[in-house]
Amino acid sequence: MNDSSPPIIALLTDFGLRGSHYVASMKAVIKRINPMAEIIDLSHTITPYSTMETSYILTSTYHHFPKNTVFVIVVDPGVGSEREILAIRTYHDYFFVGPNNGLFSNYIISKIEECVSIENDRYFYLPISKTFHGRDIMAPVGAHITKGTSLENFGSNFPIESIKQTKSDFKILSEHKIQANIQYIDSFGNGTTNIPMEGHEVRNSNIRLETGNEIKISFDQKEFIGTFETHFSEVNKESIIFLVGSTGFLELSINQGNAAARLGFSVGDKITIYV
Amino acid sequence: MNDSSPPIIALLTDFGLRGSHYVASMKAVIKRINPMAEIIDLSHTITPYSTMETSYILTSTYHHFPKNTVFVIVVDPGVGSEREILAIRTYHDYFFVGPNNGLFSNYIISKIEECVSIENDRYFYLPISKTFHGRDIMAPVGAHITKGTSLENFGSNFPIESIKQTKSDFKILSEHKIQANIQYIDSFGNGTTNIPMEGHEVRNSNIRLETGNEIKISFDQKEFIGTFETHFSEVNKESIIFLVGSTGFLELSINQGNAAARLGFSVGDKITIYV
Amino acid sequence: MNDSSPPIIALLTDFGLRGSHYVASMKAVIKRINPMAEIIDLSHTITPYSTMETSYILTSTYHHFPKNTVFVIVVDPGVGSEREILAIRTYHDYFFVGPNNGLFSNYIISKIEECVSIENDRYFYLPISKTFHGRDIMAPVGAHITKGTSLENFGSNFPIESIKQTKSDFKILSEHKIQANIQYIDSFGNGTTNIPMEGHEVRNSNIRLETGNEIKISFDQKEFIGTFETHFSEVNKESIIFLVGSTGFLELSINQGNAAARLGFSVGDKITIYV
Repeated sequence: MNDSSPPIIALLTDFGLRGSHYVASMKAVIKRINPMAEIIDLSHTITPYSTMETSYILTSTYHHFPKNTVFVIVVDPGVGSEREILAIRTYHDYFFVGPNNGLFSNYIISKIEECVSIENDRYFYLPISKTFHGRDIMAPVGAHITKGTSLENFGSNFPIESIKQTKSDFKILSEHKIQANIQYIDSFGNGTTNIPMEGHEVRNSNIRLETGNEIKISFDQKEFIGTFETHFSEVNKESIIFLVGSTGFLELSINQGNAAARLGFSVGDKITIYV
Repeated sequence: MNDSSPPIIALLTDFGLRGSHYVASMKAVIKRINPMAEIIDLSHTITPYSTMETSYILTSTYHHFPKNTVFVIVVDPGVGSEREILAIRTYHDYFFVGPNNGLFSNYIISKIEECVSIENDRYFYLPISKTFHGRDIMAPVGAHITKGTSLENFGSNFPIESIKQTKSDFKILSEHKIQANIQYIDSFGNGTTNIPMEGHEVRNSNIRLETGNEIKISFDQKEFIGTFETHFSEVNKESIIFLVGSTGFLELSINQGNAAARLGFSVGDKITIYV
Repeated sequence: MNDSSPPIIALLTDFGLRGSHYVASMKAVIKRINPMAEIIDLSHTITPYSTMETSYILTSTYHHFPKNTVFVIVVDPGVGSEREILAIRTYHDYFFVGPNNGLFSNYIISKIEECVSIENDRYFYLPISKTFHGRDIMAPVGAHITKGTSLENFGSNFPIESIKQTKSDFKILSEHKIQANIQYIDSFGNGTTNIPMEGHEVRNSNIRLETGNEIKISFDQKEFIGTFETHFSEVNKESIIFLVGSTGFLELSINQGNAAARLGFSVGDKITIYV
């Protein structure tokens, strides 16, 4: 990164396949305000209204982006109600704009240096519609941030302790039993739990997984057994495996198969793991 | 916008999920001609061959883009037949390139300052294939427009009155009865009609909708009753609501549910509304 | 193209609809290394693990891109196993980065001027994860190529004769019988075979197809009859037609219908054509 690098805005929404033109409208508004901004689609296929998945995707990817990237997050089931829209700057120089409905993880919140509630319609794309604050408020505010407008211009300080978080069921129940959620399922049907790993160890615990160990998973009155592995290529096709995914969480897969479809789990499901 | 802003080309097609590389080929051809052009995907998930939906998406979003944006629209069931390909400049400085098959709404047509039929193969990506004029004719002509080539170079003037429009069933039958179409369905299953609203009023009519009023909709020998509201958050989960969408048309939704799937309507369906 | 044109990286993956944030992570890493790189999505909806389809999409589209485009291809079922990752420069100035698992067609291989096995972690995005070499190795190496780093820096020469190719069933069995595969199916259900055409002739053969000729196709113990045409518009709605697609291969379609769904074929299927 140097000073002449174009500023980056990353968009994260649940607009889905049929909502491309909503995304495009946000890009259009951004380009009106800052023609030099580069826009990267982080994802638009978030499970509709899932703040848990949004929080996971955001937390697990934002740090790969260059410093000063502005993330505009529009997963907003409460549009039109009185939820606040926040603009956030972290002390490691990332920016986030989105509704206060649980999108921001504890991890991101712990990095916040400045947080304001967006109120100043001087920076909005007027007139404000009742159903699309992504285009009319969040996109233009994000674009103004890339032009160097400081957060205090958008509204008054918002107390960090009032930022909402999505409820998680993750809990280490014993040395052999962990309660958690499926927080994301990819196109291949691999499920990502919210069990954080550091190498072979569950973070902040005494639980260590060894390659080849059996792990039992139960959810929704079903039980399945797999093994913990470090590479997909180590097990037979169709075997259930647990491994540490590229985002640092324990993942549940079927080698070259669709685990979500075969085992029947969905985003948000509460699971129990026995190790 | 200032003079050093990169020119923008927006692409609108029905190539769908499996057609990304067709879109990419158009972008590749554009970049050959104008490496400085910025390309924004307006949508590639138009219902295949639906000129009604294309016309709706285009008309409801183009004005959010910066002036001088060039829209290249490839929804072209007649590729290979003798339909003309048009290049259009409006008097409010937007450009459109696409086949003459009903893509351009009455609203856009009313803004046209110049319209030519594209014929000059000096601006094409040769050799012309028989099945992909989007890549071989429309994309390169769009790219040349962003470089300042004026429309007269592409071909001869085309009479505005010969531009085809998609047939619409919208008609105000009485003060209490409106005939219309579903012209778009989003990822959440919300249906957008082609009933134009100005605030609470149906445009150019005496019909005014009040918050909380019952509205009956019938189509395909089915009938449903909902209420007119101004915010999603005002009604119970699962209720049928009518509201004015962000594009200014009356929309039909189920609060946090999929109206299209539950009620069974599709793009193009003819509906009747009783207010 | 001139020297001040921004360099282009094209991404081709099988990450699918739910994998956008994986794509975005690759873009983020690229932007860290070369903020000036422009990134074009070639496709992310490759049939999972299909090296045949990947090879087809790549071979049929890369040449539309400007010279010096760098293609980063992440269809990588063997991630974590010992397959090599290659960086390739052709003598007509295109670059390719991807695993050695059959992605590169005979045609592309015939153009190679330089090929190295990527080994030098000085150019990686560290630490390397076990499951996502697209982000950690291929994307950053692609970005370094756009900055002018020559291939010899990434690793040692890799012998061209050791580059793997996907097995194809294409074979001219007689003047009237051709064995082949379906190598791609588009969003409309049109199937592209791997039978290469030059105008009306099957390449390197005496077989010539005339407009209106009957062609029989058999696969999976089913048989269908269609006609060879040069334009979609020449036949009735719902008729089976064969035509030369925009990529130069024989295609199988139903006019304004979904051939793959109606006739029941999939990517990779072995077919026989009788002409």
